[in-house]
Amino acid sequence: MRNVTTETITEAFLNYCSPETAPRTWKVLESLVTHLHAFAREVNLTHEEWRLGLDLLKKTGEITNDERNEYVLLSDVLGLSSLVDMINSPDVGTPSSVLGPFHILGAPDLPVGGDLKRDNEGATVIVSGKITNPEGDPISGAELEIWQTADNGLYSNQDAGQPDYNLRAHMRAMDDGRYMFTTVRPAPYTVPDDGPVGVLLHATGRHPWRPSHLHFIITAPGHRTLVTEVFPSDDPYLDEDAVFGVREQLVMVYEEHSDPSELPDGLAIGRSATTPFFTVDFDFVLSPETP
Amino acid sequence: MRNVTTETITEAFLNYCSPETAPRTWKVLESLVTHLHAFAREVNLTHEEWRLGLDLLKKTGEITNDERNEYVLLSDVLGLSSLVDMINSPDVGTPSSVLGPFHILGAPDLPVGGDLKRDNEGATVIVSGKITNPEGDPISGAELEIWQTADNGLYSNQDAGQPDYNLRAHMRAMDDGRYMFTTVRPAPYTVPDDGPVGVLLHATGRHPWRPSHLHFIITAPGHRTLVTEVFPSDDPYLDEDAVFGVREQLVMVYEEHSDPSELPDGLAIGRSATTPFFTVDFDFVLSPETP
Repeated sequence: MRNVTTETITEAFLNYCSPETAPRTWKVLESLVTHLHAFAREVNLTHEEWRLGLDLLKKTGEITNDERNEYVLLSDVLGLSSLVDMINSPDVGTPSSVLGPFHILGAPDLPVGGDLKRDNEGATVIVSGKITNPEGDPISGAELEIWQTADNGLYSNQDAGQPDYNLRAHMRAMDDGRYMFTTVRPAPYTVPDDGPVGVLLHATGRHPWRPSHLHFIITAPGHRTLVTEVFPSDDPYLDEDAVFGVREQLVMVYEEHSDPSELPDGLAIGRSATTPFFTVDFDFVLSPETP
Repeated sequence: MRNVTTETITEAFLNYCSPETAPRTWKVLESLVTHLHAFAREVNLTHEEWRLGLDLLKKTGEITNDERNEYVLLSDVLGLSSLVDMINSPDVGTPSSVLGPFHILGAPDLPVGGDLKRDNEGATVIVSGKITNPEGDPISGAELEIWQTADNGLYSNQDAGQPDYNLRAHMRAMDDGRYMFTTVRPAPYTVPDDGPVGVLLHATGRHPWRPSHLHFIITAPGHRTLVTEVFPSDDPYLDEDAVFGVREQLVMVYEEHSDPSELPDGLAIGRSATTPFFTVDFDFVLSPETP
């Protein structure tokens, strides 16, 4: 097509694609390019803005390395990562939320009731609940991966001051679906804002804070794996998570206690928690595996 | 906003942006993010496709260096670069087309009628025409920058076998707007397809060829600078330029001659052109500078 115009260029792009293109590739590219062209037309994108955009992508590449993926972060702060999570969440069950960049494999086993807090400073939290199917029946054979920040807002793999695998555990839930552990209250933290993503945040007056949260991956035979996060109801950033990870159903409530006799039974720490301490009751609902 | 859903996430993104965001930044980001989210919803983008897309951007960064900007190439083959050119083209005058990555500053002066071909092998072409305003009046004081490939499809800065500034010139047009020079017929060439852009081209059955062309930048007092390319009517890739640069009004016609007496007057090469030779008559129309 030689007479390409602003109105025909999307059609020209599709004409160039071979009819033998894999149907899914075609569909994704058709939608992507249609929206890309519509965007440029809608705002009358200038050459200077186009160069600025490409330069931002180039700088995103320059700051990306094995430890830091600025492209994922860009997708996070634009809401794309969370949107993809939600699009792929089943209609029933606990919503998924972003995996984030701090998950590592090989966390040590912790029995139900075990102590994840150990020597960590900060408020003691006892997290418990059960894992059920959408009908509310407990699922047996469920396993949890748990990870979180320390009281300083850093994960163990960001902080040389923490032991390896600090505040990370793998837990096998009870046959009645129950899980429980003692931990430290996680802290809000900022996503890195010293790169091109920071430029974008600053240009729009946005802060880089995420509300504090506990990460979970929950698996059970015959059920869809759930990758999610749970956020305390009193976190100051709950309504303004820089990466759009919060869902109403992922909000947990810390209940404060000052009487050690209110500690639940079956805890590895026994009655030794410092007071006040907090309890959280949070149930996870897994949806059935789709065949 | 804590209860982000697939339908409210675009609104959540805009809620996060400060009302003090520069209005143009707001407008561009609003449109960009609206289309990005609409795209993801429209195709039900999977996690795997999302990762693939981010990985393609990451690889685009890895192959980009001072000499090769794969982001610009990605924009080119998606049609975005040409669309931005067309959006910013004035309604009157010769259309603009992509600058491309091979322009360099400091090309030597060549008088009207001068010989750009010199020792280059290939067919001799005499290019001439005039530079006018939209009313057809000649513009005095116009200047041209000219660059092109050699007969092997390579620019001087891609090919150690060519002298510096080979087939590059700066020319001051005559007061009656006329320009003329002798050169070699440029050759079609391929954009680099050994990187992520090549993956995209191959996945859609597209070839990496561009039709042969002459590049021009034309400036004149009181007129908008024109960055454009001119393509021969008989080029096999005219209707399938990998970067969507061709416009109907940018097609030139090579006229073949076998009689040296048909050479125009005023050429530095005199009557010494090898036969057959080609002539091209192409006029450029500059639009007035907008205040």
